[in-house]
Amino acid sequence: MKNVLIVGIGTGNPEHMTVQAINALNAANTLFIPTKGEAKAQLAGIRRDIVSRYVTRPDSRVVEFAIPVRQTADRSYHQSVDQWHAAIATAYERLLLEELGEGQTGAFLVWGDPMLYDSTIRIIERVRALETVAFDYSVIPGITSIQALAASHRIPLNLVGKPVEITTGRRLSESFPQRSETVVVMLDGEQAFMRIEDPDARIYWGAYLGTEQEIVISGRLAEVKEDILASRAEARARHGWIMDIYLLQKGADFEE
Amino acid sequence: MKNVLIVGIGTGNPEHMTVQAINALNAANTLFIPTKGEAKAQLAGIRRDIVSRYVTRPDSRVVEFAIPVRQTADRSYHQSVDQWHAAIATAYERLLLEELGEGQTGAFLVWGDPMLYDSTIRIIERVRALETVAFDYSVIPGITSIQALAASHRIPLNLVGKPVEITTGRRLSESFPQRSETVVVMLDGEQAFMRIEDPDARIYWGAYLGTEQEIVISGRLAEVKEDILASRAEARARHGWIMDIYLLQKGADFEE
Repeated sequence: MKNVLIVGIGTGNPEHMTVQAINALNAANTLFIPTKGEAKAQLAGIRRDIVSRYVTRPDSRVVEFAIPVRQTADRSYHQSVDQWHAAIATAYERLLLEELGEGQTGAFLVWGDPMLYDSTIRIIERVRALETVAFDYSVIPGITSIQALAASHRIPLNLVGKPVEITTGRRLSESFPQRSETVVVMLDGEQAFMRIEDPDARIYWGAYLGTEQEIVISGRLAEVKEDILASRAEARARHGWIMDIYLLQKGADFEE
Repeated sequence: MKNVLIVGIGTGNPEHMTVQAINALNAANTLFIPTKGEAKAQLAGIRRDIVSRYVTRPDSRVVEFAIPVRQTADRSYHQSVDQWHAAIATAYERLLLEELGEGQTGAFLVWGDPMLYDSTIRIIERVRALETVAFDYSVIPGITSIQALAASHRIPLNLVGKPVEITTGRRLSESFPQRSETVVVMLDGEQAFMRIEDPDARIYWGAYLGTEQEIVISGRLAEVKEDILASRAEARARHGWIMDIYLLQKGADFEE
């Protein structure tokens, strides 16, 4: 048997690493690190910083691998993601076959927490289903960008006793404000908050959370949306990439 | 000015502690630790373990304080919580006035993450509004029981590209399955999952997550609900207390 660890490494602040995650990296013979292209060189740098800061095991080795690019032409969103996962599973299968010896442990470093809008667990399950390489695996949680967002804004996510919805930019219009009073929006490439017209909506936005480039803006949505749009565009142009997230909320504690 | 740190310490596994949280505890002159009564002596033990394992600052001191009990008679839920928060704010005010010197830092240790179904941030804001003691504060995120649940079951929380709702047992009937296909239920004192009759619902349940007593059960809800109810009752009787959480889900990845 081989052993795989899927390790959440937080959202950009190396101090988000948990003791459990540090121990997991040191339990691994091999660290599998995806290369994500030039635009995210800064992220790769943070990941290298995490490895050099916390991995003390002398025989630890790093294997970088290219993640296949998702193809979107002539297929539905779901087909596109499904085929992409299949291609990544083939890449992972090769890593486990060729880069891990029998009885060895390999760790995949995942931004945030593997449980949330991340495909690593699903892809590892696909590799298991291939039955070409025998392995067991464990998941180690990590600080998500939701948590970094709430901590930077010093806000509770939920109103007292009330629910919170986590969704994507693509689905925001189904959700806020009619279905949920509190919505966290991840993976929003289209700035879906710009289309929300509710006068009572508040927004708590953050980009590059946990890093030195962190930007946070909050306020009444109608009053700050243009500011967020402009700050986002400016920062994206300057850094060459952006990762952002936001919370939309209306209503108050102690209000039915 | 005094300084307050609200520090998430994870859900029971001392290795959930982040490096940032460890550094925060060591930045504090005083650690404020609530006493929660005999029933949760085990939790108090884990918290003491965290302090003794990670706090290396020689002049660190621990101040234990009693949290007022929430009164529920003759008032609404919201009145009850509001009055309870006011009583806790008075206790915190006294701690900051009497137990922290000028320029000193105090840390409140919070289970899980301060952002989620926790009142510490709200209460600290209430103390600020009293304007009787000048202080600034920061929030340090911690691993939540949601993350421990997903890691132990080795599951992604969300179906591909779909939303997740986080709610309470009290509000579950508003939510699953009609409003949300994926719901995390926290703070469920009444085992609200027993009233869900959907034949396609799956449940991923966990108790004492992160501790040596951890129990996890998963499966089709209709098939495992009685097993969860019985295991929960047995464990609660044996330990004298229980903290549990679960995910309900229906539908599948790549399905509209």
